[in-house]
Amino acid sequence: MIAPEETNGSDKHDASRETLPASTRVYVSGEIHPDIRVPMREIALSDTKSFNGRIEKNAPVRVYDCSGPWGDENFSGTAEEGLPALRREWLLKRGDVEPYDGRAVQPQDNGYLTEKHAEFASKSERANRFVEFPGLTAERRQPLRASAGHPVTQLWYAQQGIITPEMEYIAIRENMYRSQISEQKEDIVRNNLDKQHAGSTQLPDSPYTPSIFGRFPQRIPQQITAEFVRSEVAAGRAIIPLNINHPECEPMIIGRNFLVKINANIGNSAVASSIDEEVEKMRWATKWGADTVMDLSTGKNIHATREWILRNSPVPIGTVPIYQALEKVNGKAEDLTWELYRDTLIEQAEQGVDYFTIHAGVLLRFVPMTASRMTGIVSRGGSIMAKWCLAHHKENFLYTHWDEICDIMAAYDVSFSIGDGLRPGSIADANDKAQFGELEVQGDLTKRAWAKGVQVMNEGPGHVPMHMIEENMAKQLEWCHEAPFYTLGPLTTDIAPGYDHITSGIGAAMIGWYGCAMLCYVTPKEHLGLPNKDDVKVGVITYKLAAHAADLAKGHPGAQYRDNALSKARFEFRWEDQFNLALDPITARSYHDETLPQDGAKTAHFCSMCGPHFCSMKISEDVRQYAAAQGIAEEEAIAKGMEEKSKEFVESGAEVYTPV
Amino acid sequence: MIAPEETNGSDKHDASRETLPASTRVYVSGEIHPDIRVPMREIALSDTKSFNGRIEKNAPVRVYDCSGPWGDENFSGTAEEGLPALRREWLLKRGDVEPYDGRAVQPQDNGYLTEKHAEFASKSERANRFVEFPGLTAERRQPLRASAGHPVTQLWYAQQGIITPEMEYIAIRENMYRSQISEQKEDIVRNNLDKQHAGSTQLPDSPYTPSIFGRFPQRIPQQITAEFVRSEVAAGRAIIPLNINHPECEPMIIGRNFLVKINANIGNSAVASSIDEEVEKMRWATKWGADTVMDLSTGKNIHATREWILRNSPVPIGTVPIYQALEKVNGKAEDLTWELYRDTLIEQAEQGVDYFTIHAGVLLRFVPMTASRMTGIVSRGGSIMAKWCLAHHKENFLYTHWDEICDIMAAYDVSFSIGDGLRPGSIADANDKAQFGELEVQGDLTKRAWAKGVQVMNEGPGHVPMHMIEENMAKQLEWCHEAPFYTLGPLTTDIAPGYDHITSGIGAAMIGWYGCAMLCYVTPKEHLGLPNKDDVKVGVITYKLAAHAADLAKGHPGAQYRDNALSKARFEFRWEDQFNLALDPITARSYHDETLPQDGAKTAHFCSMCGPHFCSMKISEDVRQYAAAQGIAEEEAIAKGMEEKSKEFVESGAEVYTPV
Repeated sequence: MIAPEETNGSDKHDASRETLPASTRVYVSGEIHPDIRVPMREIALSDTKSFNGRIEKNAPVRVYDCSGPWGDENFSGTAEEGLPALRREWLLKRGDVEPYDGRAVQPQDNGYLTEKHAEFASKSERANRFVEFPGLTAERRQPLRASAGHPVTQLWYAQQGIITPEMEYIAIRENMYRSQISEQKEDIVRNNLDKQHAGSTQLPDSPYTPSIFGRFPQRIPQQITAEFVRSEVAAGRAIIPLNINHPECEPMIIGRNFLVKINANIGNSAVASSIDEEVEKMRWATKWGADTVMDLSTGKNIHATREWILRNSPVPIGTVPIYQALEKVNGKAEDLTWELYRDTLIEQAEQGVDYFTIHAGVLLRFVPMTASRMTGIVSRGGSIMAKWCLAHHKENFLYTHWDEICDIMAAYDVSFSIGDGLRPGSIADANDKAQFGELEVQGDLTKRAWAKGVQVMNEGPGHVPMHMIEENMAKQLEWCHEAPFYTLGPLTTDIAPGYDHITSGIGAAMIGWYGCAMLCYVTPKEHLGLPNKDDVKVGVITYKLAAHAADLAKGHPGAQYRDNALSKARFEFRWEDQFNLALDPITARSYHDETLPQDGAKTAHFCSMCGPHFCSMKISEDVRQYAAAQGIAEEEAIAKGMEEKSKEFVESGAEVYTPV
Repeated sequence: MIAPEETNGSDKHDASRETLPASTRVYVSGEIHPDIRVPMREIALSDTKSFNGRIEKNAPVRVYDCSGPWGDENFSGTAEEGLPALRREWLLKRGDVEPYDGRAVQPQDNGYLTEKHAEFASKSERANRFVEFPGLTAERRQPLRASAGHPVTQLWYAQQGIITPEMEYIAIRENMYRSQISEQKEDIVRNNLDKQHAGSTQLPDSPYTPSIFGRFPQRIPQQITAEFVRSEVAAGRAIIPLNINHPECEPMIIGRNFLVKINANIGNSAVASSIDEEVEKMRWATKWGADTVMDLSTGKNIHATREWILRNSPVPIGTVPIYQALEKVNGKAEDLTWELYRDTLIEQAEQGVDYFTIHAGVLLRFVPMTASRMTGIVSRGGSIMAKWCLAHHKENFLYTHWDEICDIMAAYDVSFSIGDGLRPGSIADANDKAQFGELEVQGDLTKRAWAKGVQVMNEGPGHVPMHMIEENMAKQLEWCHEAPFYTLGPLTTDIAPGYDHITSGIGAAMIGWYGCAMLCYVTPKEHLGLPNKDDVKVGVITYKLAAHAADLAKGHPGAQYRDNALSKARFEFRWEDQFNLALDPITARSYHDETLPQDGAKTAHFCSMCGPHFCSMKISEDVRQYAAAQGIAEEEAIAKGMEEKSKEFVESGAEVYTPV
């Protein structure tokens, strides 16, 4: 009865491996750790051709790149081989981990309740969806685990004062814009490309500064150093989600004094989609800028799908382990046990999952608070735990076994993403007792995890009207001791299904500005259906622009550089550069070409909005040329008496119209 | 060399006349003026089928409807006939206007420089694009004008203490949700549908209230009365843009103590599009919720296009008269004269344009301030006036003739939309000296217009990073004496061409919350090309959701009603109701159907996101059913000892899984 997922033009596999226009991969090396190579995408720009025929070069623009080796035009690997184990040497060098014989994969891990069931499935039509990942060497088939009696987490190293290669890698990555500005200083300064508005955090006395920054100010230095990365991680204000068994992953950081990050959810479901599709969705999402990816698979083949994704992912992978645990008990929440859940955690930790969403704050006493809600409990994990609690009338076993969970996390450096199982599912339910009750518990759990050396972020809502968003951020900072916040949207109204990437993009941009460290994307299909590749892309781009809007508002140094470069290109009618600097060059170009497909139109000093005869940009350029030529400087010029000059201007033949 | 506009599936004409699903038109009569009939769209809902088999009715939901007679399933008029002259009797009854022989239409009005040129054009291939509107009676061919020696503006009536039919009409319209709540009270209260969060303006002591509300609080009463409408108009805090020569228009209000409104821009350009297309775009835009429409036509047939639009538009039409004036001088800004511009104003006032954008604040002394900008002057009107000022080295003639302009506006009740010709065209240029210099002048012009009895709103930016938006609103309220603000976006980053409906939707929602009265939409094609019908729709829906998010944040009473109704439908798996209550039911349904096209899926208690075997909504419903059945009330329940009950729960067979 289930229709296969709709595919469309962009849905062919390997579409994610086409290089973006005018882009090349560059790498920047470390100083403390000279062997690290931090990837960036460099966008080449064309020359500026001035009115008077003068030609000026435009420095290429480097942008943050999440696509990993898949975005490197010189990389020729395949999904069957997986990505190179970038970090394996760094890990082994630290001397505090050891390989061991991991847990054997069981039929239940893939949702088959018996061996027979699995065997049958492998012969059935679904067989081609269920292929074990082939690419691991014998050496790599053994997982790593802490062996020196201390956590092997970035938090622990940071607290020991150790600057890991991961930390320096991140510093270079976060600092990208600024390093570029220093390299190409002359051109950039001449064109004001380095100019940037002071962010709200740099305006402590502004009457417009929201109250929230008063108590928990953002502190973004002009230069992100490796030591700054270390200190933020040590303080718990940022996390580096990197499982020691996911060496393919490129280091990145989540914290409010860094660039705002975004997450894209993928995952097969019982309804549709194959392993191939999910791997390609992951690559596709990172190509467009997903900083992390959550694999929310349900149904069959969860273990196999995750293996394929992990071995091919250059970004951290998050999961909600209770989803898989539930499959193992055939969907009966009340049959879940701590032992089965613990086994699932270890299974996933050995595979290399970088962060786990764990709904340990859904306490028994909060569950009845949701009965009077407009939309009850809408988090899957939250509702599973709520049902378990009610069925047994016992406290949530994730809560009662928290310390044991922490020990597992510490042994693999899996980060917590403490779930918000009682997040509001409608505007009506925003900021209620159940939600905030759980948030307080998230804060307690955060402290306990830190005591065990485990990195933590906290998940947040959901559906919240604009004026109630700030309260979420303020309470989270206070109650969760400034651990990073990671929210889903929030959606600012319920009345636009089909456009919830936008209703939530509004809330996401705002909470990012207020200090939220990572924004979980929402696609246009939210509440309605499974996202296809186009939906994933629209979701990622929407959240990328929301995160960037937040970076500008926070005043992340250098964030405005790309806006400036794109605006300069726009003003100078460098159409190709405008497209290429866009978050989505393909769509920008195709929208332009719908009206003016001819190549000539891309060098024309006009566009289809106003036609060839009229353009305010053109007029404005005339004004500027004129002002520059006459040496006019603002009010002074007026005093000089411009009547004479204006006559020259008219006589010079400068026209509103450009010749067609 | 110019390609015709791309058309697509939804681009066929008259698509705008298909009724939205489950919707009927209802009318509400006035009390002070019993002959007024205020249109609303009523969405019928299906019954709630409870777990235990109980069936409950759901009250239909009334929503604000901008589509006019075109949205009335019983209306059979055509574009050639135009809409009925709804307000003509009201106008004539006031006894202060008289018909007269208006200005004769000249070839120049349509962009033909001579009679011969016009004649040639009418024989050419373009002839079918240039058909005079046929539908006016002889009587209606005479325009109306003030005749009693006083302004015939809603401002003037308001200041005399007169509650016009227009004002009562608006009160009923703005008050819609609340009137519904009182009509269907029992059902609505039982289901908590009337519950709403206090808005930011109702939380004066909240630490989270932005500073802006301190000095210029929004004051939205629980019930919008006709007297409240009158008092807001009298104070200049709101305008009712209604030219006495546009009697087809349904009254609406723009002011920060009312629902946030949105504007859609249409207009043919020298590049593409015909009159037919523009009329259909206007109907299309109002179908989806455009509260006003601006006709920004350039090139040929401006007069004829506008006539067709006005005679068919149920919403106020705005224009930028300098665009047409520029066509009359063949595009040479320096050839513009006051006399020619004045004649254009009269031409358009006689046709019935409801508000004029006039860039009178672009003063000579501000122009050189733009020379050092990243993107100079990006407003068309602004750049025309800047060029004129520089060419003549004289002050802007719109500024120097302001009082004469006011006299024309007062005689027809055309409202000012004082243009922001120096708005920033990039993040880099936001909130600069030129922009704020002009804003101060807009404030002076506002006061002078009020002294002449003319209604005024002020236009605002543009491109502004999030943290600098509030300053725009605060300064506008202070400098422009609380006149309504009308902004374009603002766009919160420059790096996402192709997605600027979203970059700007973020800024629009925020400034709407802060007090902006009307948001000018931006389509996905902004900066890239001419919007087609799909783009117009996406732009309108995006802005509609942004405006609604702002209404929720402001706490407009009753605004949350539709969110509540939709969320209740979502929670109860009433898929059809969820689609039908959406801003865009067509897209919501089609997204759902991409994954689950079968009719059965629309009554199923699951959706494609999680598949038939698992649904958090379903689990949550179980929890609620259980809590209700057991009489459990929050913490008390815990104390009662639920061990026993939980056993019953499991034994009752309630499962996480629903049977497939």
